[in-house]
Amino acid sequence: MKHTISIIVENKPGVLARVAGLFARRGFNIESLAVGTTEVESVSRMTVVASGDDSVLEQITKQLYKLIDVIKVFDIPGEQAIERELALIKVACTKENRPEIMQIVDIFRGRIIDVSEGAVTIEMTGDEAKVEGIEKLLKKFGIKELVRTGKIALQRGVNE
Amino acid sequence: MKHTISIIVENKPGVLARVAGLFARRGFNIESLAVGTTEVESVSRMTVVASGDDSVLEQITKQLYKLIDVIKVFDIPGEQAIERELALIKVACTKENRPEIMQIVDIFRGRIIDVSEGAVTIEMTGDEAKVEGIEKLLKKFGIKELVRTGKIALQRGVNE
Repeated sequence: MKHTISIIVENKPGVLARVAGLFARRGFNIESLAVGTTEVESVSRMTVVASGDDSVLEQITKQLYKLIDVIKVFDIPGEQAIERELALIKVACTKENRPEIMQIVDIFRGRIIDVSEGAVTIEMTGDEAKVEGIEKLLKKFGIKELVRTGKIALQRGVNE
Repeated sequence: MKHTISIIVENKPGVLARVAGLFARRGFNIESLAVGTTEVESVSRMTVVASGDDSVLEQITKQLYKLIDVIKVFDIPGEQAIERELALIKVACTKENRPEIMQIVDIFRGRIIDVSEGAVTIEMTGDEAKVEGIEKLLKKFGIKELVRTGKIALQRGVNE
């Protein structure tokens, strides 16, 4: 099963290596990971998307809490989550097919953020399906480069 | 000095732990990290923002190439980079100050993606300065939760 796990940690050297090591030792393959600062400067938030057994995840969560720099670990259930990721996609582009590319970007509410002779770069936010949807449509033009941030998530509504 | 390093790796369990371990052992503090799949399914791209000495970074790069699953490592110089990150910001909100919050979001070209009694959630993409700019302006309303993806980067123009 696929899980999206949020891990709140002290922003200190080595924390990431310890957290990643824990997942690796249990054979959990991390599909995507996003690490950034939060509203509190000394605190970072990791969002991990990983697939594996529920019981193993429970063990990992327990082990995470044993790490001194881990403050909180939680799993946001899919139906309560606002999930987003960001992708930058560089697509081959000629004068002839540029209008068609612009139309696709428009429909997906993406943004063209760089244009050069022969290529455009598109910024796209959305859930996984949306990012993969535009990727599929742009494939025929030739995707030169693609980079994704990995998913981040917040709980819907007001929670403390 | 602050560096933005792109690392192209085979998408296999344990790669992340090995890469993170390498940075940790050299005392490089990873400020932000984004890991996601690329245009090639079996390949992931990590974007690491870390600060430390140039000569140490050179050592780290050499060590990275010794890891079997690392395909390519490169540093995109700031002036050639298109850099973006994504943030989700949940802000306390009343009926009275909602118009002001909406105005700020509009100016920064953010998007309101969830509204509930007492809070709104904003999706914001941009470079670090932009995300920090809106964060600063929204602070007075009360930021309830904030999660950031970490930066991703592509080179401007056409490169192979």
